[in-house]
Amino acid sequence: MKIFVENDVAYVSFSKKLEKMGIGVKKGGKLILHPIEVLYLVLNGRGEVVGKSLVDVFEWCMERIDNFIPKYCVYEDLRRRGYKVKILEDVLVGKYVFYPIEEIEDVSIRSLAERRFENLVLAVVDEENELTYYKVKEVEPRGRHEEEEFNVKGVLVENRIFTDGFLHRTYFYGSMKGDMTILSILEGAYLVEKGCLEVYKAGSKLKLDELIDVGRRKDPDFERRFEVYRDLKDRGFVVKTGLKFGSDFRLYEYVGERLPHSTYLVTIVDDRTIPAFEIVRAVRLAHSVRKKMLFVYKDEKGNRYISIERVKV
Amino acid sequence: MKIFVENDVAYVSFSKKLEKMGIGVKKGGKLILHPIEVLYLVLNGRGEVVGKSLVDVFEWCMERIDNFIPKYCVYEDLRRRGYKVKILEDVLVGKYVFYPIEEIEDVSIRSLAERRFENLVLAVVDEENELTYYKVKEVEPRGRHEEEEFNVKGVLVENRIFTDGFLHRTYFYGSMKGDMTILSILEGAYLVEKGCLEVYKAGSKLKLDELIDVGRRKDPDFERRFEVYRDLKDRGFVVKTGLKFGSDFRLYEYVGERLPHSTYLVTIVDDRTIPAFEIVRAVRLAHSVRKKMLFVYKDEKGNRYISIERVKV
Repeated sequence: MKIFVENDVAYVSFSKKLEKMGIGVKKGGKLILHPIEVLYLVLNGRGEVVGKSLVDVFEWCMERIDNFIPKYCVYEDLRRRGYKVKILEDVLVGKYVFYPIEEIEDVSIRSLAERRFENLVLAVVDEENELTYYKVKEVEPRGRHEEEEFNVKGVLVENRIFTDGFLHRTYFYGSMKGDMTILSILEGAYLVEKGCLEVYKAGSKLKLDELIDVGRRKDPDFERRFEVYRDLKDRGFVVKTGLKFGSDFRLYEYVGERLPHSTYLVTIVDDRTIPAFEIVRAVRLAHSVRKKMLFVYKDEKGNRYISIERVKV
Repeated sequence: MKIFVENDVAYVSFSKKLEKMGIGVKKGGKLILHPIEVLYLVLNGRGEVVGKSLVDVFEWCMERIDNFIPKYCVYEDLRRRGYKVKILEDVLVGKYVFYPIEEIEDVSIRSLAERRFENLVLAVVDEENELTYYKVKEVEPRGRHEEEEFNVKGVLVENRIFTDGFLHRTYFYGSMKGDMTILSILEGAYLVEKGCLEVYKAGSKLKLDELIDVGRRKDPDFERRFEVYRDLKDRGFVVKTGLKFGSDFRLYEYVGERLPHSTYLVTIVDDRTIPAFEIVRAVRLAHSVRKKMLFVYKDEKGNRYISIERVKV
């Protein structure tokens, strides 16, 4: 099939077959082709551009399309799987709305989420041009954990609080050492704020602000983490550190939960952009411990939880 | 057992039993105790400090020992497993030399390696005071991959090089798209330097420096990665990107290797310090794809490869 380029627009004579494949846009007796469709036809031996070598075609396409490589790779992958797909600025539209991105490129989860696409799928192209797809959607996570009020005392030791063993045994706070519970500063600050815990150092009782200062010393983001921790507790979760999994928190729906059902790893992103490969890695790690990956950002409505999960398309 | 503190030194009357457990240092009729040994005896109900409450004991120990929490946790964990262990400044010495560190603290792999301990074990204490142990040792990785000389041409498209399919089929460079191999800039630069590849853009041949500039645009560390890539190729490995696993490279011993034996993930650290939890995460991820984790730094002798591997102690 002969492809013509005139006034920088590529077209073929109208073809029922191509139209059926969802390629090109009919205009008069022609099908106008997107540069990605041109390269797809050429590389797959279905067409040749009159007067241009393969190298010329590459360069013509590249100059016309931003972010050409990831778009082309996604387009080709979806075609190969038999999907019809149209290129619409920075997304490809088919069964889902695909957002192609190279693994090495930065992405803002907040900006992605704020486009409020139903069926948004992140299509990540790795350095070897292999594709993985990730469904991006907002969720409202809820647990079933409940706590009664209590009142205990604890002692600050460096950045830990040694307190009553009952906190770990009953509500899974902190960890056990002998018959004591050792809390993190985050847990301690939360319980002090709730009025369930008094923390002492050198005989005098510490204020919440003093505990927050201790937390901030090792963790500049302590206050924001505290905010999300509190929100997750209010949502009924048992909240533990997720550090070992590269995230801020891991969640359990209730104490004693052993079964691997819908629990989460949570990472606070807010306005940060992160390289796509970090998303890939986080989702992979979450999956390996049978959890779902949630990313959090904050807007005027409060904390927004964005689930990102691998899908087969 | 009564523990006395005099002139800031803690001791008990000489006890055959404690000495046999490896606790204390004999001096006259006494056993001089390290503050960590004091707390261990007190928390395990084997002793009490005359004239001090539990809270006083905590504070007395803490003030005397830097980095008290991780040291105490490691000491207690090793004791519980029946090991004799002595505290020697920043390490604990027993079956191995243990370097206790909190998951959240930064560590320089280079500084650790340069202490040249035989049997160095990183003892990582997480936020819940649980311990994992990692053997740290220098290795000389070697592969068995060999390549003959060849000469092909390629075209630069954004940050990829489209070239002959034989490069992927024969030597596993890049990836396939149709019947072409698509190389990364790193692979391209290596092959140009070796004289095996000529890269063209808009009809003119690119110099090595120009390719390196292209690489640097998306990756400020491109030149150092190129250096390590070259070293690993010289060591006989098939070298692919490790980005998806959070590392710089993944290595195969030869083309077509399918069996999960001693291959590696490689991360360049040089003089960077990284939080211990990143080491934990990297080793966990490497293990999940049946590879060993290597960290690289450079000194006057060249690239040094440090293997970090989880061990049960």
